[in-house]
Amino acid sequence: MSRHDPDVIDSVEKAFRLMQCFSAQQSRMTVSEAAQAAGLSRATARRLLLTFERLGFAESDGRSFGLTPRVLRLGFGYLSALPYWETAQPHMRALADELRESCSMAVLDRSEIVYVARVPAARSMSITLSTGSRLPAYATSMGRVLLASLTPDELEGALEGVELLPLTARTVTDRAVLLAELERVREQGYAVVDGEREEGVRSAAAPVRGRGGRVLAALNVSANAGRVSLEELRTEFVPRIVQTADALTLELGWTGLH
Amino acid sequence: MSRHDPDVIDSVEKAFRLMQCFSAQQSRMTVSEAAQAAGLSRATARRLLLTFERLGFAESDGRSFGLTPRVLRLGFGYLSALPYWETAQPHMRALADELRESCSMAVLDRSEIVYVARVPAARSMSITLSTGSRLPAYATSMGRVLLASLTPDELEGALEGVELLPLTARTVTDRAVLLAELERVREQGYAVVDGEREEGVRSAAAPVRGRGGRVLAALNVSANAGRVSLEELRTEFVPRIVQTADALTLELGWTGLH
Repeated sequence: MSRHDPDVIDSVEKAFRLMQCFSAQQSRMTVSEAAQAAGLSRATARRLLLTFERLGFAESDGRSFGLTPRVLRLGFGYLSALPYWETAQPHMRALADELRESCSMAVLDRSEIVYVARVPAARSMSITLSTGSRLPAYATSMGRVLLASLTPDELEGALEGVELLPLTARTVTDRAVLLAELERVREQGYAVVDGEREEGVRSAAAPVRGRGGRVLAALNVSANAGRVSLEELRTEFVPRIVQTADALTLELGWTGLH
Repeated sequence: MSRHDPDVIDSVEKAFRLMQCFSAQQSRMTVSEAAQAAGLSRATARRLLLTFERLGFAESDGRSFGLTPRVLRLGFGYLSALPYWETAQPHMRALADELRESCSMAVLDRSEIVYVARVPAARSMSITLSTGSRLPAYATSMGRVLLASLTPDELEGALEGVELLPLTARTVTDRAVLLAELERVREQGYAVVDGEREEGVRSAAAPVRGRGGRVLAALNVSANAGRVSLEELRTEFVPRIVQTADALTLELGWTGLH
């Protein structure tokens, strides 16, 4: 990507690329493993890893390298700068308590949603997805709300090269059907997804808008299909989710609602 | 820092430095503002911001730049790679439910603790500190557990240049008193802090160990002093926190407990 773009500093692009190669599957890497994972020369990978180590973003036992908690500083500036961060928490807590299901907030990063806030259900077991987790936008209620808020050009960009894989037997995988569903989401002001990302999980989401009416984030409630019927989700959950998202929108200063 | 260290790639150090300048107070910056905040030349700041934008880590409205959710990818590799991430969640949930107070886990980054997992209390209002938040280690129960696990050399390094500021009237600000308290924490296997970081907040913490007995993280329960007396914290909370931390330690494979 960087090779033909004079505005991109090559070593910075490689540093970010390498940092993203660390994962649950590969939490520690030798120089050779890092070079292979990031598609870099051994010499470049070594120099980058040593740079990470000197700056405190990685530590080494002499053989392999692992990231340190300092890397969380790189994303924390973004999270703490979200204008709705403080405002949203009490609203989300109240909604999760009332519906006894988990309440989340996510933003769009191209074709994926990224969780930025999450309040688990009061009950003991809940789906565990934490800040920074990603899911494909097309198969989630928050993703559909966020995709539906894009202009046609932006939407095309977000879905470019994205294969609509069947994550369950119910996932919408036909692009025309997805676009029609997004049109409906835009008109009705919320999205309902029933087991399309994961069997047995239903969720509904609504948009949170900032000044000027721009959609900032999506707010959802996710529930186990064994506890909450589709009917209950539509008639009882959706109105409360939309109300909460609208209350947040009003607090964030947009007065053009309805 | 980088200027005299041949192992550090200069542009990578500057990129990380600039990214960390974005904050709640300065969520968007012009090229000039970014240059000033990070102590860079205007030309360097501009080139870095354009690099961030091209790589999708920042967006621009033509005048100012802001970070995008993509930056969360940089820290997420670290979070998802934590060996105790999945293991810890149900234990923390159960403890928070039982004690009806929030339960957190943190790791040490030099003189600060960094929250890596958090389960809020079932009750509606709880202290809102989320993943990636930082607090000074010396005045928190998790910080004291983590500092107490260091070797004398490591401890000296962690506290080097750290001023023990009085965050409340109760904060231990004398280095000798702090070192004696850390010695006690090491011996008893837990830390109790009463209003030293924030008036009216009490907390207790215990270490979670990995293979070989190395302390990986600290687990704590934090409570409002109006609800939980110091006596109750010591006699009822501490044993449950230590039990939960020990259960986690055993699940993580260390068999040398007690």
